[in-house]
Amino acid sequence: MTGARSAEIRVSEIFGPTIQGEGVLIGLPTVFVRTGGCDFRCSWCDSLHAVDSRYRDEWRAMSTEEVWREIAKLSGEEPVMVSLSGGNPAIQPLGDLIRRGHGEGYRFALETQGSVARDWFADLDVLVLSPKPPSSGMETDWDAFDACLRMSRDKPRTVLKIVVFDEADYAYAKTAAARYRQLPVYLQPGNHTPPPADDDEASIDIEGLMDRMRWLVGRVTEDKWFGAHVLPQLHVLLWGNKRGV
Amino acid sequence: MTGARSAEIRVSEIFGPTIQGEGVLIGLPTVFVRTGGCDFRCSWCDSLHAVDSRYRDEWRAMSTEEVWREIAKLSGEEPVMVSLSGGNPAIQPLGDLIRRGHGEGYRFALETQGSVARDWFADLDVLVLSPKPPSSGMETDWDAFDACLRMSRDKPRTVLKIVVFDEADYAYAKTAAARYRQLPVYLQPGNHTPPPADDDEASIDIEGLMDRMRWLVGRVTEDKWFGAHVLPQLHVLLWGNKRGV
Repeated sequence: MTGARSAEIRVSEIFGPTIQGEGVLIGLPTVFVRTGGCDFRCSWCDSLHAVDSRYRDEWRAMSTEEVWREIAKLSGEEPVMVSLSGGNPAIQPLGDLIRRGHGEGYRFALETQGSVARDWFADLDVLVLSPKPPSSGMETDWDAFDACLRMSRDKPRTVLKIVVFDEADYAYAKTAAARYRQLPVYLQPGNHTPPPADDDEASIDIEGLMDRMRWLVGRVTEDKWFGAHVLPQLHVLLWGNKRGV
Repeated sequence: MTGARSAEIRVSEIFGPTIQGEGVLIGLPTVFVRTGGCDFRCSWCDSLHAVDSRYRDEWRAMSTEEVWREIAKLSGEEPVMVSLSGGNPAIQPLGDLIRRGHGEGYRFALETQGSVARDWFADLDVLVLSPKPPSSGMETDWDAFDACLRMSRDKPRTVLKIVVFDEADYAYAKTAAARYRQLPVYLQPGNHTPPPADDDEASIDIEGLMDRMRWLVGRVTEDKWFGAHVLPQLHVLLWGNKRGV
């Protein structure tokens, strides 16, 4: 029984296809599998409904086959990019799902803070490592982060994505980028206004977001950091913090 | 004398670095060289100041070395992506500029409608072919377009970028994508409100843009066109139609 349970994936939500709103795959139609549970508690987490155990009654324990069937149904059985996010999806058993989907021509991107390494990272098509800057209130364990890179064995397309709210975050991003010169960098202005998970209509400070975006573009160009991409969360601009889009 | 003149580049503006606002390089710091003159007259052109001969007094005839020095100055001599746009930059002699910049570690992207082919396309790092859909009022000469691809000799990273205002444009985009299955596709909702070139402050219909963006995302996902990227013009969202950013 323990064996069977351990293969279950804790799922907060599966939705899409809609476009990826951020980072290296921005604009690409994607089905999202958001897993439940996280080893971090970032102060500005925009997906608390997939993190905070207050919401765990909403999470479903699903088998690989159940998750796969939902992806196949949402995509009309047409191969699509699947984004595995959370929470921290690295704490879920996703290796079988990736192999299952690959067999049907689907591709898989994983987004994780880089705190937990899995051997199935090497099976991913895209690995987005998103270390958390000082404003999150979290500390980065660079040894754990290095282990994630080792596990990926240079197989997926791997990028750094770092949320930046302020100068301290920006300095952290520069340090992280210097540490991993081989990885393309995506900087993302922080979203200060995550709504409660049960309130789709909570207002977003779009002007504040755009101000931080303009500030960050200025910061990067002043510094001649010409390898860093600066991208907002497009889905927030299009749909606010609404879930399921 | 004719030989000397033929090496001059007609320049509308050189500006940056700022982030690329659209397409495959979205978010990347870039210096823009916008050349003057175009063999097309798209009904919704958003760069008339680089197209319409009414503005030709603003254009400068510059040598390769003069253009290069301005790029080097703007970028503080740090290698950066250079976007060659227009107008149609393919009608300018840009081969020497590309070779000059490559010698210093700079990279070059060219954006063109694909009406004029040049042998120096093969020297580019990125070639954005942007055939014009029916709403532009222009006809596509696919033989000329094919010649652009042939000239590039598969050397640059080459993508299709297509502006979409309506269903007819969308159908055109699907046909173009089917014709060039090997090329990644970037769809861009049209911007209905180009201001006069001398009016930075003319208002932009941001909500209209976002509505078309949401419509286009819906259209692509309904059709299960999962290889197509859908991206807005980020610079318009950030800065309106203001020039020089």
